[in-house]
Amino acid sequence: MADPKILETFPNPAPKRDYVIEHTHHEFTSVCPITGHPDFAAITVRYVADKICVELKSLKLYFHAYRNEGIFFEEVTNKICDDLGTVLRPRSLSIIADWKARGGFTSRITAEWSGQKRTRKA
Amino acid sequence: MADPKILETFPNPAPKRDYVIEHTHHEFTSVCPITGHPDFAAITVRYVADKICVELKSLKLYFHAYRNEGIFFEEVTNKICDDLGTVLRPRSLSIIADWKARGGFTSRITAEWSGQKRTRKA
Amino acid sequence: MADPKILETFPNPAPKRDYVIEHTHHEFTSVCPITGHPDFAAITVRYVADKICVELKSLKLYFHAYRNEGIFFEEVTNKICDDLGTVLRPRSLSIIADWKARGGFTSRITAEWSGQKRTRKA
Amino acid sequence: MADPKILETFPNPAPKRDYVIEHTHHEFTSVCPITGHPDFAAITVRYVADKICVELKSLKLYFHAYRNEGIFFEEVTNKICDDLGTVLRPRSLSIIADWKARGGFTSRITAEWSGQKRTRKA
Amino acid sequence: MADPKILETFPNPAPKRDYVIEHTHHEFTSVCPITGHPDFAAITVRYVADKICVELKSLKLYFHAYRNEGIFFEEVTNKICDDLGTVLRPRSLSIIADWKARGGFTSRITAEWSGQKRTRKA
Amino acid sequence: MADPKILETFPNPAPKRDYVIEHTHHEFTSVCPITGHPDFAAITVRYVADKICVELKSLKLYFHAYRNEGIFFEEVTNKICDDLGTVLRPRSLSIIADWKARGGFTSRITAEWSGQKRTRKA
Amino acid sequence: MADPKILETFPNPAPKRDYVIEHTHHEFTSVCPITGHPDFAAITVRYVADKICVELKSLKLYFHAYRNEGIFFEEVTNKICDDLGTVLRPRSLSIIADWKARGGFTSRITAEWSGQKRTRKA
Amino acid sequence: MADPKILETFPNPAPKRDYVIEHTHHEFTSVCPITGHPDFAAITVRYVADKICVELKSLKLYFHAYRNEGIFFEEVTNKICDDLGTVLRPRSLSIIADWKARGGFTSRITAEWSGQKRTRKA
Amino acid sequence: MADPKILETFPNPAPKRDYVIEHTHHEFTSVCPITGHPDFAAITVRYVADKICVELKSLKLYFHAYRNEGIFFEEVTNKICDDLGTVLRPRSLSIIADWKARGGFTSRITAEWSGQKRTRKA
Amino acid sequence: MADPKILETFPNPAPKRDYVIEHTHHEFTSVCPITGHPDFAAITVRYVADKICVELKSLKLYFHAYRNEGIFFEEVTNKICDDLGTVLRPRSLSIIADWKARGGFTSRITAEWSGQKRTRKA
Repeated sequence: MADPKILETFPNPAPKRDYVIEHTHHEFTSVCPITGHPDFAAITVRYVADKICVELKSLKLYFHAYRNEGIFFEEVTNKICDDLGTVLRPRSLSIIADWKARGGFTSRITAEWSGQKRTRKA
Repeated sequence: MADPKILETFPNPAPKRDYVIEHTHHEFTSVCPITGHPDFAAITVRYVADKICVELKSLKLYFHAYRNEGIFFEEVTNKICDDLGTVLRPRSLSIIADWKARGGFTSRITAEWSGQKRTRKA
Repeated sequence: MADPKILETFPNPAPKRDYVIEHTHHEFTSVCPITGHPDFAAITVRYVADKICVELKSLKLYFHAYRNEGIFFEEVTNKICDDLGTVLRPRSLSIIADWKARGGFTSRITAEWSGQKRTRKA
Repeated sequence: MADPKILETFPNPAPKRDYVIEHTHHEFTSVCPITGHPDFAAITVRYVADKICVELKSLKLYFHAYRNEGIFFEEVTNKICDDLGTVLRPRSLSIIADWKARGGFTSRITAEWSGQKRTRKA
Repeated sequence: MADPKILETFPNPAPKRDYVIEHTHHEFTSVCPITGHPDFAAITVRYVADKICVELKSLKLYFHAYRNEGIFFEEVTNKICDDLGTVLRPRSLSIIADWKARGGFTSRITAEWSGQKRTRKA
Repeated sequence: MADPKILETFPNPAPKRDYVIEHTHHEFTSVCPITGHPDFAAITVRYVADKICVELKSLKLYFHAYRNEGIFFEEVTNKICDDLGTVLRPRSLSIIADWKARGGFTSRITAEWSGQKRTRKA
Repeated sequence: MADPKILETFPNPAPKRDYVIEHTHHEFTSVCPITGHPDFAAITVRYVADKICVELKSLKLYFHAYRNEGIFFEEVTNKICDDLGTVLRPRSLSIIADWKARGGFTSRITAEWSGQKRTRKA
Repeated sequence: MADPKILETFPNPAPKRDYVIEHTHHEFTSVCPITGHPDFAAITVRYVADKICVELKSLKLYFHAYRNEGIFFEEVTNKICDDLGTVLRPRSLSIIADWKARGGFTSRITAEWSGQKRTRKA
Repeated sequence: MADPKILETFPNPAPKRDYVIEHTHHEFTSVCPITGHPDFAAITVRYVADKICVELKSLKLYFHAYRNEGIFFEEVTNKICDDLGTVLRPRSLSIIADWKARGGFTSRITAEWSGQKRTRKA
Repeated sequence: MADPKILETFPNPAPKRDYVIEHTHHEFTSVCPITGHPDFAAITVRYVADKICVELKSLKLYFHAYRNEGIFFEEVTNKICDDLGTVLRPRSLSIIADWKARGGFTSRITAEWSGQKRTRKA
């Protein structure tokens, strides 16, 4: 399973400003855990950085690590949201996964990270 | 008539988070109850799951079951909304049906499910 | 002039729910009252039905009746809004008329029906 | 300089309703006051009429009158806004000017008319 | 590094009105500080002018000055925002940088300038 | 029925050169002779002029004259081809009629005029 | 199985001219003979009529008759080609079937009818 | 009238190779000689240079010189073809003029230059 | 390496006719043999069947088998061409591989199979 | 000036087949030798390899080397054609350079390499 330790970061160059960073990976692919058939998605990471930003090449490698994982749409979107939230501790973060045509369907899963809720749970 | 018992579900993998799941079926077809001519639509199911999610293949079979049903645009959109609301008991749910060209018209019907109202009525 | 008596209706199949019905007629044509040249528009009827819905084929015939009428953009949009409001008595209604290129211009007229105002005026 | 006296008007056919009229002229052209090179824009006039509406052919001639005027993007957008506001005294009015590619740039200038402010200034 | 002194200005022709000026430069290019590979972006400057407007040709030269600079996406967007805010002292200002495909990713960085916050910090 | 005598012509300004003139009318409309429903088409006239060219405004009026004619796709395309061939006696001529959606169909009829063949047959 | 006897014809209105008639049906649907899942296609009939033309409404009904037939892409395209060739005996005829996405694939089957060759073989 | 003497040239950098140069000017505008209304076109110059190439900035100024000329579509296309043919004496040359919407029409005029033919005729 | 033995076939339903079958797989992915990064392509198989056709589901599985193969664009296109030629022995066959953006490049490789040449070489 | 020695090659994996390789670089940029302003192009290399193919990463670096070169459209297209022809000695080769908007123009230069002709001339 894709390990968030792959993710590298660098210091936020403008920490005093709330500005939005949005990276869309157009070549995400994983595998359906039931049929073994490949799934394809464009995955957008949209966040307001706090102290650190995610380094783009490491984010690519993190996404590549899902290539042969069997995992459902809903689960992978939430896992990416959790992993990036844990690593970046951003001011806000959302993940939008746009899944390409599968059996006449397209799907979009959108998850928002919330540090508060997680803190309460800890 | 399409039977909601066809619909299968699986446990919501992130029940603590309010995240949005959106499936669009691009190949919906039913039949006009007056002329018998086929109608075509793209139907979007957008919901925030509570305890369960709808399984995609069963949703496809549920939609296929309308293939030879004679039913009006307004009625089928509301029936899908009712069926999915009853099965999923979601935190929120809306159905958007985009009907393709018929006699120089395109149509869109949008219905929102509301468990509260229904509970009051029961 | 197009007669709203052409419009046929059927009972709203889900009167307990506020849901949106939107029909777009892509082949509206009338005539400029000054030059006699044809005008073309796509006309959208968007409403929340109360007790009744408009039947689509009668709506088409109602629109066809403008084919040889000389009438201005602003006037025809408001007349359609008045006619459909009077016939349907909907919870809400808006008309959006998108006029195609004429002398280097495209135009959009958007009118919203308000039963309350009309009631006060009566 | 384009003279607003060219603009002709006709009585608002539905003065009791606040409805939106939007005309987009796709063939606006003026001249850069510094280089003398032509500029091209699509200009949208969006307003809620009060007592009168602008007649479309006269609006075209008013726009044609800028053809050989040397005038900056910001200035021409504001002048059109002032001229139409003064002539129509509308309930609301905005001008959106979309300038085509010039030196690798596209530009959009958006101005809103406010009779109140102008009255205060008078 | 691109010097904001290149930027020229002219007096706002309509200082009593809050209107929006938006310039999009479609040919921005800089260099990745790690790999040395070129990056490409469309950069939008959207602002409400106070006393002065930015002159378009000087803005183009300011952007050209990044051509051989090694600089990260996040940093360059914030520097442009700071430079234009300092020079124009606008009523509001935002910078939207849309980076083209790099390793399967597209990126968008959006920063808003806030004179107030900066004044407090000074 | 549309009368080719409406068509006006002017002398070919470059009769020594075989060059192609192509006019596309995007607003053609006639009526189905069976159902009475309106049909819509974009009609292209492509020709190499000999001694005369067709004047564009008269061509528009000629097309407008079909507005209330009941006529089949195949027939109207051939009639336009015959009428323009007879009036212009061009070096070559073809008519391409693109009919918009009708009952789930779009149609294209393409006819080429041949003075030679017709002469032989006369 | 769809019966070519449904097809109605009318006399070619311009039999002396070789002109091309092209009808595209955008709403063809049949069923996969193995999985029972629906297939969707746009089917184009392109022909040069000899003595008769196919009537459009009957062509629609002929296509509708495939709605619940289990039949492969290659077979249905060839059957339509044979049926229309036999009924119309055209000067030339081709069928182009564009199948929509199925398992990550789109497909196009193109068949040309040849009365001569078939006659020779008989 | 636009004077071909405005056109500047430079030596063909690869005279031994027959290669194609194609410049499209997207901002051509002239005036209708009858109504005085502006016309707009995209004009493509496609040629195989012999000894000289046309300099792009001078070509732009040559096109700008038509801005207030009253001239028909057919005539201006042929004049541009003649002017560029005379100045460049190219191995081959064609002009394609795409005129924007005017009264529901778009038009394309395509002319090919032929030094040989013209020489024979002189 | 993907094994052509995965490919299944069925008898050509219209062997007397030369008709074209074209399948495009939009979800091909393999791996760069140097960097290990994923490559993505749309691969079109266009052929005239002789005695047999390729079964679509087996073709999908054959393409899936490249998912973790390290192989160059040129090599994989030729291997697919060879494999399908050997299995189908078609009347003609071509493979078109459209590779998505990689380092600012898109690529297309097109190979045609020729049984004759291969026979000569054997 | 970009040095063709940067270009690396690898053996053609299918030398017995004439197949087409086409690489399009979407991020070419050079500098106008007169104004110093940047130019942008998409450059396509289309060839049939003989003994060797060009390696894609080295082709990218070769194109990057033009970043600060002052060179005309016509000249750079021919130089790329000469350089790749000399290095690859292909069976055929063409270069298509699509230049983005500059002063209201787009341009396309297309050059074909011909080893035979050049050899004869030498």
